[in-house]
Amino acid sequence: MSKTWRVYLSGEIHSDWRERIEGAVQAAGLPVALSAPVTDHATSDDCGVRILGAEQNPFWHDNKGAKMNAIRTRTLIGDADVVVVRFGEKYKQWNAAFDAGFAAALGKPLIVLHLPEHSHALKEVDAAALAVAEEPEQVAQVLSYVITGELPGSNAT
Amino acid sequence: MSKTWRVYLSGEIHSDWRERIEGAVQAAGLPVALSAPVTDHATSDDCGVRILGAEQNPFWHDNKGAKMNAIRTRTLIGDADVVVVRFGEKYKQWNAAFDAGFAAALGKPLIVLHLPEHSHALKEVDAAALAVAEEPEQVAQVLSYVITGELPGSNAT
Amino acid sequence: MSKTWRVYLSGEIHSDWRERIEGAVQAAGLPVALSAPVTDHATSDDCGVRILGAEQNPFWHDNKGAKMNAIRTRTLIGDADVVVVRFGEKYKQWNAAFDAGFAAALGKPLIVLHLPEHSHALKEVDAAALAVAEEPEQVAQVLSYVITGELPGSNAT
Amino acid sequence: MSKTWRVYLSGEIHSDWRERIEGAVQAAGLPVALSAPVTDHATSDDCGVRILGAEQNPFWHDNKGAKMNAIRTRTLIGDADVVVVRFGEKYKQWNAAFDAGFAAALGKPLIVLHLPEHSHALKEVDAAALAVAEEPEQVAQVLSYVITGELPGSNAT
Amino acid sequence: MSKTWRVYLSGEIHSDWRERIEGAVQAAGLPVALSAPVTDHATSDDCGVRILGAEQNPFWHDNKGAKMNAIRTRTLIGDADVVVVRFGEKYKQWNAAFDAGFAAALGKPLIVLHLPEHSHALKEVDAAALAVAEEPEQVAQVLSYVITGELPGSNAT
Amino acid sequence: MSKTWRVYLSGEIHSDWRERIEGAVQAAGLPVALSAPVTDHATSDDCGVRILGAEQNPFWHDNKGAKMNAIRTRTLIGDADVVVVRFGEKYKQWNAAFDAGFAAALGKPLIVLHLPEHSHALKEVDAAALAVAEEPEQVAQVLSYVITGELPGSNAT
Amino acid sequence: MSKTWRVYLSGEIHSDWRERIEGAVQAAGLPVALSAPVTDHATSDDCGVRILGAEQNPFWHDNKGAKMNAIRTRTLIGDADVVVVRFGEKYKQWNAAFDAGFAAALGKPLIVLHLPEHSHALKEVDAAALAVAEEPEQVAQVLSYVITGELPGSNAT
Amino acid sequence: MSKTWRVYLSGEIHSDWRERIEGAVQAAGLPVALSAPVTDHATSDDCGVRILGAEQNPFWHDNKGAKMNAIRTRTLIGDADVVVVRFGEKYKQWNAAFDAGFAAALGKPLIVLHLPEHSHALKEVDAAALAVAEEPEQVAQVLSYVITGELPGSNAT
Repeated sequence: MSKTWRVYLSGEIHSDWRERIEGAVQAAGLPVALSAPVTDHATSDDCGVRILGAEQNPFWHDNKGAKMNAIRTRTLIGDADVVVVRFGEKYKQWNAAFDAGFAAALGKPLIVLHLPEHSHALKEVDAAALAVAEEPEQVAQVLSYVITGELPGSNAT
Repeated sequence: MSKTWRVYLSGEIHSDWRERIEGAVQAAGLPVALSAPVTDHATSDDCGVRILGAEQNPFWHDNKGAKMNAIRTRTLIGDADVVVVRFGEKYKQWNAAFDAGFAAALGKPLIVLHLPEHSHALKEVDAAALAVAEEPEQVAQVLSYVITGELPGSNAT
Repeated sequence: MSKTWRVYLSGEIHSDWRERIEGAVQAAGLPVALSAPVTDHATSDDCGVRILGAEQNPFWHDNKGAKMNAIRTRTLIGDADVVVVRFGEKYKQWNAAFDAGFAAALGKPLIVLHLPEHSHALKEVDAAALAVAEEPEQVAQVLSYVITGELPGSNAT
Repeated sequence: MSKTWRVYLSGEIHSDWRERIEGAVQAAGLPVALSAPVTDHATSDDCGVRILGAEQNPFWHDNKGAKMNAIRTRTLIGDADVVVVRFGEKYKQWNAAFDAGFAAALGKPLIVLHLPEHSHALKEVDAAALAVAEEPEQVAQVLSYVITGELPGSNAT
Repeated sequence: MSKTWRVYLSGEIHSDWRERIEGAVQAAGLPVALSAPVTDHATSDDCGVRILGAEQNPFWHDNKGAKMNAIRTRTLIGDADVVVVRFGEKYKQWNAAFDAGFAAALGKPLIVLHLPEHSHALKEVDAAALAVAEEPEQVAQVLSYVITGELPGSNAT
Repeated sequence: MSKTWRVYLSGEIHSDWRERIEGAVQAAGLPVALSAPVTDHATSDDCGVRILGAEQNPFWHDNKGAKMNAIRTRTLIGDADVVVVRFGEKYKQWNAAFDAGFAAALGKPLIVLHLPEHSHALKEVDAAALAVAEEPEQVAQVLSYVITGELPGSNAT
Repeated sequence: MSKTWRVYLSGEIHSDWRERIEGAVQAAGLPVALSAPVTDHATSDDCGVRILGAEQNPFWHDNKGAKMNAIRTRTLIGDADVVVVRFGEKYKQWNAAFDAGFAAALGKPLIVLHLPEHSHALKEVDAAALAVAEEPEQVAQVLSYVITGELPGSNAT
Repeated sequence: MSKTWRVYLSGEIHSDWRERIEGAVQAAGLPVALSAPVTDHATSDDCGVRILGAEQNPFWHDNKGAKMNAIRTRTLIGDADVVVVRFGEKYKQWNAAFDAGFAAALGKPLIVLHLPEHSHALKEVDAAALAVAEEPEQVAQVLSYVITGELPGSNAT
């Protein structure tokens, strides 16, 4: 009867932020279906050549893989009710910002997750977001509030 | 087998109009899934700062909360088959009119609910509506007719 | 697992063509969910004033009713996979042609159902259709073929 | 500098209503570009077979012509800021109602022009319109008001 | 060669804010085409009945006028690159908030103009805006910056 | 809970490539709902005249059938998450390329399946694709990877 | 004042059909702006590697070129009022069919040009078209009729 | 008569790449209208607070500016025929990747410009592009080819 909210978790793949959101969402019993890109780095890099054949030129090696991943990511972003994008401390993470722009242009509600030290560099991304959080648990709380209308610590549920 | 109609109830939060529609819809056994914004005033005002951190400037306090609420309201309006907007006797209720305009631009069938004394001030909103009602029970009757094809007082069902 | 096809049956309300399609579709066991406007003439005419209050001017009497019916018809046409529009022998039936135009602009596959004597008058409507039939049973056969890939009289199913 | 309003005039082709609108629009010096379907009946009927080759079956004769006309009508309706549809006293005029539905689904502001005797039969079409007029001069006045903000008989311009 | 920016000025009609924006825009020589609703109150209220015939019921008097005005306002909002909405000190101004919601759903960049005392009541509208100003001259400066890239007081142009 | 991926298999109908994909997808237990055009050549050619009446002119014989098939194909392509298009060794297969263009314009992720000898002739189609495969089993592997995130030969599932 | 019709000429590049349409359109003084893909075969094949660097693998050589050409073709198809696609006697011409599908999905009026011997193979493409011609001069006549409302051989203009 | 191509130049603001493209485009006499974000770093950072009032919290200082810049950037990207995004050697440049994602979701043809050393980090962005260049002059050559159909060094024009 209740709507299941589809939430796509884009971005950084080197910490456990997705698991922390998933744990908090499950603990709260929220009707949320989480999805994400393939988060195994090597698999994600090599999927194209592993399935469709090797490439000598590393550019096309990457290109084949990135396109194959796009079948997954664009479909899931297109399906999502809410898109969460996390920026970690390291790496360029241009794919995270690309996903944020993609989601924004589709009119998807955007939640951005990053440390304060990146606020200036991420100001255009944050400006397109409906919520900017620092910790994964805050994202889970946003989802909980948005879905149930209850704030953390309230006794109402 | 039968379609469940998703109906979003926007606007005034100080009377029991949503409960009256819900009661009438349930009594009639209609396949309707009602949704609404968060209707607890304090919760709705403070959600942003409670989850994402305090703001000294009241403008940003409000801004954080309004954006967080928008994750819920835009998603549910976008999902809705029908949008009902109620204007009460008091307050500016600009968010209700904003939701009406938002729904109209998305091509959502719009039902507006208000007392006759506001008809002139609401003429632009009413002009975008497919039904204008004074009482919540009328809204329930509209939904009943639209879904079942039966008018109130008929013996057919 | 199998897709349920949503088929909207617009137009003429004075013969049993909808029942004939429904009967044939059920006999064939097709996964089809049929929908239609309110087909009781008096109910459809008076719904607006019965629920929302009487109007002295017949124009607004009609207007209130037509808008209320539009909540139903536009939602169901918007949901439909296929729109069938039948033109009968009598009356202007401008609402049928309006629905056909509406469905065409939304890119919905259109099946038109009418007698050959109306072919010239309906040439613009037929030109927007993917099938033009004379009998309701043909419409059911089109749906059967489109969904199952089997032609009537074949032994395959 | 001023916007030129593109206005498409659909429907009845047996009276001089388009000329009356055009005359009034020109007299008022309005920045309006009028367009219309091909209004010569025989030309409109025969265009398909005259250019693309004869058809023995009258259905396909009509079909070829109606599709060729659709290249013009759909393009011009798609370009239009405002769509005017006139229903005359005679004939089925299903193409007029089809155009009205097509324009409505595209979100085009719709002005409908017909005599009061057709109000009941046209109630669904009128319910989708932003103005319903009886005389072509009223349509010109609507355009004048919409574009200049001045009402007929005012001294302001 | 340079793009002309189409800017729609919605909302309050009892002060000279549009003239102040227009004056500042012209003084700066900006390539801006301003548009607005009909701002003469009586004309805007009575346009429907003046052109299309009197109504005894004030609801339909208003309805006719509001729909006629919608031909203008929806077309110009749809054409606009930027939509500015001003809320004044008085009246309900639900049409202003409706326009803001309509523009937001179309993805139009929104600039909201109001005094700080209305910030709380307008928090949902402000949350959908890309700029919130208090004075018309600020709106002109925003337009100037957005178009030329120069800030007020800089020497560069 | 898990999303069912809708995959449309367009193109060549003279080999068992669809069965090979279906077999591999079922063996892997993937949540995939496959759909396809009617693949019986004679049935697909004659459906129009069989149901709606014979045509003397072979052009209209074909036209009736092609439009009836379009009810199926456009609906299923519009529903699809992923569109796979296979080009075989023989025949013009313009309908396959048409479907590829149709899917590309709708923004559907496209997988193209053909032998290397057709790479030059298909370069525009391949350039619109997110994956280009030679064997049906590769398509199944792409689907498996996209849905599960596991590569063939990995032990993770 | 008069609309300039943008017409994109897709498909076969080995005969003078574009020149024949252009000549006829100019002779008739029609307000038509024709556009087309790059029709020099070698240039079109090699553009990618000539500008962006050589590729050893012919697949990527083709891919680079096809994508570069897509910048032109998709932009011009997207801009077009009418899309004409010609199929010649030779070659696979899958890009022509791809363009036809692309244009159809965008709702562009489609004119297809081919010899009768290809009617069966092109039945799906023809079924999506509003006109099917055999000679370029017929296409010019269709454009002339659609724009001016006059048939060839009439004296009216 | 000839189409003017609108090209938006997004991304890196610390080198003269825009000037080099502009110079090459002008030297070639191409009908191109270039646009770009505000490229003066301090102006771009401070625009929000300079016009709309100071903020104590640097997050909101940035937020005000980023939203004001978005009025410009989203409008110009939405208007563009082609979007070019350059990634430089330094900084996070998340706004460049955000713009690339935004443009990709709108279906804009994308040209990406960066050094080979960033190919791996940019593989998702490159995979969404129709051309990937290393030097600004290549971008100008792509535009020249796309618009004129001539390759650099050919004598044809």
